[in-house]
Amino acid sequence: MLRTVSSHIFRSARVVGSHRVAIPRVVGPRIFARAVQLTSETYPNLQRTAFAKLTEEDIAHFKTILADSAVIQDTDMLLSYNEDQMRKYRGQSRLVLKPKTTAQVAQIVAHCNARALALVPQGGNTGLVGGSVPVFDEIVLSLASLNNIRAFDEVSGILTCDAGVVLENADNYLAERGYIFPLDLGAKGSCHVGGTVATNAGGLRLLRYGSLHGTVLGLEVVLPDGTVYNSLHALRKDNTGYDIKQLFIGSEGTLGVITGVSILCPARPKAKNIAFLGVPSYEAVLQTFAHARGELSEILSAFEFMDRRSQVLCGEFLKTDAHPLEDEHPFYVLIETSGSNKEHDDEKLEAFLESAMEEGLVDDGVLAQDETQLRNLWEWREGISEASQIYGGVYKYDVSLPLPELYGLVDAVNERLAEHGLIGETDEFPVKEAVGYGHVGDGNLHLNVAVRRYTKEVEKCLEPFVYEWIAEKKGSISAEHGLGFQKKNYIGYSKSELEILLMKQIKGQYDPKGIMNPYKYI
Amino acid sequence: MLRTVSSHIFRSARVVGSHRVAIPRVVGPRIFARAVQLTSETYPNLQRTAFAKLTEEDIAHFKTILADSAVIQDTDMLLSYNEDQMRKYRGQSRLVLKPKTTAQVAQIVAHCNARALALVPQGGNTGLVGGSVPVFDEIVLSLASLNNIRAFDEVSGILTCDAGVVLENADNYLAERGYIFPLDLGAKGSCHVGGTVATNAGGLRLLRYGSLHGTVLGLEVVLPDGTVYNSLHALRKDNTGYDIKQLFIGSEGTLGVITGVSILCPARPKAKNIAFLGVPSYEAVLQTFAHARGELSEILSAFEFMDRRSQVLCGEFLKTDAHPLEDEHPFYVLIETSGSNKEHDDEKLEAFLESAMEEGLVDDGVLAQDETQLRNLWEWREGISEASQIYGGVYKYDVSLPLPELYGLVDAVNERLAEHGLIGETDEFPVKEAVGYGHVGDGNLHLNVAVRRYTKEVEKCLEPFVYEWIAEKKGSISAEHGLGFQKKNYIGYSKSELEILLMKQIKGQYDPKGIMNPYKYI
Repeated sequence: MLRTVSSHIFRSARVVGSHRVAIPRVVGPRIFARAVQLTSETYPNLQRTAFAKLTEEDIAHFKTILADSAVIQDTDMLLSYNEDQMRKYRGQSRLVLKPKTTAQVAQIVAHCNARALALVPQGGNTGLVGGSVPVFDEIVLSLASLNNIRAFDEVSGILTCDAGVVLENADNYLAERGYIFPLDLGAKGSCHVGGTVATNAGGLRLLRYGSLHGTVLGLEVVLPDGTVYNSLHALRKDNTGYDIKQLFIGSEGTLGVITGVSILCPARPKAKNIAFLGVPSYEAVLQTFAHARGELSEILSAFEFMDRRSQVLCGEFLKTDAHPLEDEHPFYVLIETSGSNKEHDDEKLEAFLESAMEEGLVDDGVLAQDETQLRNLWEWREGISEASQIYGGVYKYDVSLPLPELYGLVDAVNERLAEHGLIGETDEFPVKEAVGYGHVGDGNLHLNVAVRRYTKEVEKCLEPFVYEWIAEKKGSISAEHGLGFQKKNYIGYSKSELEILLMKQIKGQYDPKGIMNPYKYI
Repeated sequence: MLRTVSSHIFRSARVVGSHRVAIPRVVGPRIFARAVQLTSETYPNLQRTAFAKLTEEDIAHFKTILADSAVIQDTDMLLSYNEDQMRKYRGQSRLVLKPKTTAQVAQIVAHCNARALALVPQGGNTGLVGGSVPVFDEIVLSLASLNNIRAFDEVSGILTCDAGVVLENADNYLAERGYIFPLDLGAKGSCHVGGTVATNAGGLRLLRYGSLHGTVLGLEVVLPDGTVYNSLHALRKDNTGYDIKQLFIGSEGTLGVITGVSILCPARPKAKNIAFLGVPSYEAVLQTFAHARGELSEILSAFEFMDRRSQVLCGEFLKTDAHPLEDEHPFYVLIETSGSNKEHDDEKLEAFLESAMEEGLVDDGVLAQDETQLRNLWEWREGISEASQIYGGVYKYDVSLPLPELYGLVDAVNERLAEHGLIGETDEFPVKEAVGYGHVGDGNLHLNVAVRRYTKEVEKCLEPFVYEWIAEKKGSISAEHGLGFQKKNYIGYSKSELEILLMKQIKGQYDPKGIMNPYKYI
């Protein structure tokens, strides 16, 4: 049973149950009846660049590099590589290649470069901006079979692995050795280590362990001409020259194919606590955060907030009405602490909660008592992403904003959609609702617009409205999801002309033929 | 009085005294009688590149940009800008410019670029590889007058300041607001925030707060053509495009002049403890580290080790024989904890020390009781850098190595110097001794070869021997000091040909005329 901090503090606590809520997985786009529209049809003005067309000779050549089973041409099998997980984009690739070694990747890329064949590197295909699927007929280079742990140093905590290792597998491997992967996110069961680096994923542990620009120590990258850049030196400190590897972190496959990653992993905390709180207002969310940072300081490992609407949607997705908190609250906060001494952490957390209740910042709450409850509580945060799609699709915006403005965007979007008559409870309205949640500590809001279908009308209502709203408040149009296809044309809302020019120089230097993940990013 | 953990655990503890040991500062090179040799004489084969020569018209032009007092031509005043703090390198610049604004920097750089005049950006001139002083007649562009705090956000902890703010001043400013600068190093009283970023300094807090690649959020940089790159967006997360600012972190003034820095600062810990321990062997140092990381985990903020020789030298420098520990030990360890609850931290530290003593990892030790003692103990670590120069000069090597090999380099160097008859106690020997200390947590060793004078013989005995030794063990020839002038020709020991080629492309792209900090880095 979930522990209330003390009966006079937390009025009520619902029992989530001692068994884990089975989280329904969206296993693939085919569970939906409706086919995803081709990206080329959704954006009819977009023209295919004059890349070469794939020939039988190319395929024969790839079969000299790879086993036949790693050269995929079957239409049914191609589908899941062509469609993104939001069911918003669909490419028309006729070829997926699944190399098992860096040398094979290098040979493939060298051939594509020589032939001017366009390529899309693909990890777990869990991206949220259409960056990991083809737009036209680009070849998909899947890293899924390049999936070995290469080395782990138990003294320094440095992990070196192939790009295609699934994040959860890497973390499980580390857990057995007393370490933790410095990044965690909802898609961990599918996304690849290399993909998180290529997209500079932020996720749930950024507050505690910092960004990948700090934790990634080295990369192995096949450059667009097929040469292999290797900085997997596995030293924590190396200050000899420009830190070239940083360019690939967040480059979304446009400068090369990341094939190996070396990353510094912290010791796995021995104790973990989760508090799930009901909070009366967005202002109280911010005050609770400031209070938590002061009181919980070095043991604070996550501070997530969710609005009421996101929790209703999540309940539908999880197929339960047993929300952790019995009463309704406008906002919810999930606080995680991780430390080396359970007793000390409990003491700090209880002192924090008591004072937060006294100050009226928090109305109600529960604490997880064991690992199962801990996971159950997390599902009310992590489930939102998939829950936002259950009506058919989702427009996702992941933005940075100054903290006081953060939640205002959700209200602004719901109002605008209502003004345009696009939002409602019945099937005639394309939009179900817009929900907001995110990482308060990082100034990062996830705005999910749950839709019944994707329409031009909805998209036009949302964009560039959302980007203009953010630019006006001096925010970023992509806090962690990246640019991909969706935001390529909106980079000017976050970056200056000079910044964009410097980026284009880099792209031109590394990939003069533009074969790497075209039509995206920049 | 310093507190022994408990009388049966720590046998002895010397009282350092309740007043602070006055640390003698090396105020400038003129306290030494001997003049520093010109770099051009030390390296007679080095040729001046065909840059333009400074004319009276140039100086007149600079005087239209700057006040007359910011255009320095006086020979005596130029001396301290021409000489590095190790007294190893001396340039022959005839002009120092001290702009007060970014706009002035931009005008100066644009003029130099148009005229092909070479420039050396200079911060606090505390660099250790000869990177911040001219080699020939390059103009010195001092950032010392560009020294304002621009903004601080008390909710997010983001500080934005001019490059020329002295590190200690920035930290004091933050301390008043409950925050801490995420970097600390011995030269904090002189070095600039911009200089630490330009050199990607590591320092004492890296173990806890990570590298500048993770904490720096944005930079303002005057590019070699005089345009101003600005990414001081002051958002924790922004994932829109290549992270160009990373290129300037650690570029040592070769890609532009950093004029502004935006950096994420953590909450200042409320409690701090220092333990100063005597340890029987280098192996015990490593075991103590592994033990500390497990037991102290999230509150461990520094783990430094020092060899016996470094402590003797430090005593001479501090002019005291009252070492914190009465008996002699082959190695010493300084452990710092920082946390939000003094009682919890004390409990964790005592438990750790008791078990470390029981396991025979630690022979003796003291704990600081107050801020004064805490500073005194730190001086036996931070003083080593300056102490290494009191005999006349120092060859400094700052290397990363796999932990088991780390200290072996110090022994190898002392042996080699002895074999060549270069080391001894009397004035006829150019070398006094080689001492070792550093940040165990980062695999980072500082090897200081204290010399009575700089000679070609000593340099030839040390180099490339040291670099070869490191390369053989797959280490890095510069963990945190950078390349500068000293290591320019040795980068091949740490980086591959492809890596060097990619760096040269960047340099060529940004600075086609090569005017920024020439003869160095790459």
